Amino acid sequence: MYRIGIDLGGTNIAVGLVNEFCRIVVKRSTPTRASRPSDEITADMAHLCLEVCAEAKVSVTEIESIGIATPGIANLDNGCVEYSCNLPFRRYPIVKKLASMLDVSESKIKIANDANAAAYGEAVAGAARGSANSIMVTLGTGVGGGIILDNKIFTGFNHGAGEIGHIVIEIDGAQCGCGRKGCWEAYSSATALIRMTKEKIEECEKTGRYTVMSKAEHISGRTACDAMRAGDAAAKEVYDKYVKYLATGIANLINIFQPEIISLGGGVSNEGQSLIDALMPIINKEQYGTGFLTTAKIRIAELGNDAGMIGAAMM
Amino acid sequence: MYRIGIDLGGTNIAVGLVNEFCRIVVKRSTPTRASRPSDEITADMAHLCLEVCAEAKVSVTEIESIGIATPGIANLDNGCVEYSCNLPFRRYPIVKKLASMLDVSESKIKIANDANAAAYGEAVAGAARGSANSIMVTLGTGVGGGIILDNKIFTGFNHGAGEIGHIVIEIDGAQCGCGRKGCWEAYSSATALIRMTKEKIEECEKTGRYTVMSKAEHISGRTACDAMRAGDAAAKEVYDKYVKYLATGIANLINIFQPEIISLGGGVSNEGQSLIDALMPIINKEQYGTGFLTTAKIRIAELGNDAGMIGAAMM
Repeated sequence: MYRIGIDLGGTNIAVGLVNEFCRIVVKRSTPTRASRPSDEITADMAHLCLEVCAEAKVSVTEIESIGIATPGIANLDNGCVEYSCNLPFRRYPIVKKLASMLDVSESKIKIANDANAAAYGEAVAGAARGSANSIMVTLGTGVGGGIILDNKIFTGFNHGAGEIGHIVIEIDGAQCGCGRKGCWEAYSSATALIRMTKEKIEECEKTGRYTVMSKAEHISGRTACDAMRAGDAAAKEVYDKYVKYLATGIANLINIFQPEIISLGGGVSNEGQSLIDALMPIINKEQYGTGFLTTAKIRIAELGNDAGMIGAAMM
Repeated sequence: MYRIGIDLGGTNIAVGLVNEFCRIVVKRSTPTRASRPSDEITADMAHLCLEVCAEAKVSVTEIESIGIATPGIANLDNGCVEYSCNLPFRRYPIVKKLASMLDVSESKIKIANDANAAAYGEAVAGAARGSANSIMVTLGTGVGGGIILDNKIFTGFNHGAGEIGHIVIEIDGAQCGCGRKGCWEAYSSATALIRMTKEKIEECEKTGRYTVMSKAEHISGRTACDAMRAGDAAAKEVYDKYVKYLATGIANLINIFQPEIISLGGGVSNEGQSLIDALMPIINKEQYGTGFLTTAKIRIAELGNDAGMIGAAMM
């Protein structure tokens, strides 16, 4: 039994054939070329679906279900992408269009926001498997996330819920891309870690303080982490600050949702268990319930870039 | 058809007989005397249940359902109060005990945390009626709240969710009673409004600036609001600051939950529509979705102190 997961990104469309063990057995992708008309993008999605089926020698009519992970507001009820920043979709009936192109029933096709689909992937086949209530936090260019409640993606009454990166944790703080100031995203994304690293290097250069980070040719989210592990004191200050903000936001999520598992994905999560070890003392101090409640386990996400595709397929 | 709602507080136990129109037709109360053994408190609850039934000339066996709104962690699955700050309950099987004392089936009795029961009351019979997804925010001694998703009280996997007052909105900010610094509660409770008012009066006295608030014999949550309406500039600064923090926290809730309705209860909500009018420009600017999503309506709660009792009865 096969399912298809479509991971529609601003850069690439990736389509995977997923087996009953939630494993991707065939994968194909093509550039999105996001400035094209919506129907052309959908036509390429349909084409890739047929390709992965042909490769596995199954007919698309035999496919159990097809899921689309899309950026923006995915309306799970009517199968439309209501709005997307990075794609031309505006109230675009993507389910209807794809069903028609593939000649399959609309009821076979589901959509979800990409971050939500990734969270669902981790919930069914990754770090949060076995739990009905989990949250995935993606620490990448921004801070994204998906909330799974009672084994379902939570989207709120208007399908726009789960913007966990846009919780203000420092009023009048750092400017966020969303327009607000002081969002969690402005402190806990990889972008924010890079900003903090650059600020610290500048500060060191101004005051004549030594830091190995000054020698880095290219500043990435890893620069401060690597330098900290090499014993650099300035890098440790950056890392500790980053961890404090990240832990504060995670404790916020726990106090709101009391999820069973929080999984951390995105580039920064490559730091692995050492990141969790740094977070836990602060989270344990800041969360509601330490000492009298069983509280959330924090884990590193397991499915990497495949989470959205697998989650979409399994919806 | 009658239901019973029990509002168990740290100070009083109040029991109401609620009719099919969600109206309280008989109400009785007695002091909680919270230092007593748990069973004595429950015995008084049972006694009041029998009293309200006798007053309405119905037998307790004819009662459709009984709901208990309790402080602390209410485990909806096993009918226990797991933990409460203000009451002696520790993993206390309140449903079983009350059922036995009243000689009714345990399945007739439900429990919920008091803030959650109040939110449920507003959802079934108050400001959020008709909506399946709403949040009630109580602006009192603290900032409490209850989250209703798909017509059900949301409690998380461990029954402790919904501590919306304990979202940090200003890292390293004002000390909160929960142990964290900078919680929403430390800026948006009536207690916080009183603190801000006192701070402003002190500041005015130090700098020789005139404020009518200096003449107040007793500083309450209304002091700054009343003085602001009388044209006092210092009071307006307090009010504007309070409104800014309150709006920031509400926008956080919208970005996370996208509820259909947010109702404001507690003492500060007596400011009524003028409070909402002050909040909306900030919320509209700060929430995700303005312009392309239908977003939450903000309303003043309607049931006052009866919300918990009515909500408990209707669970």
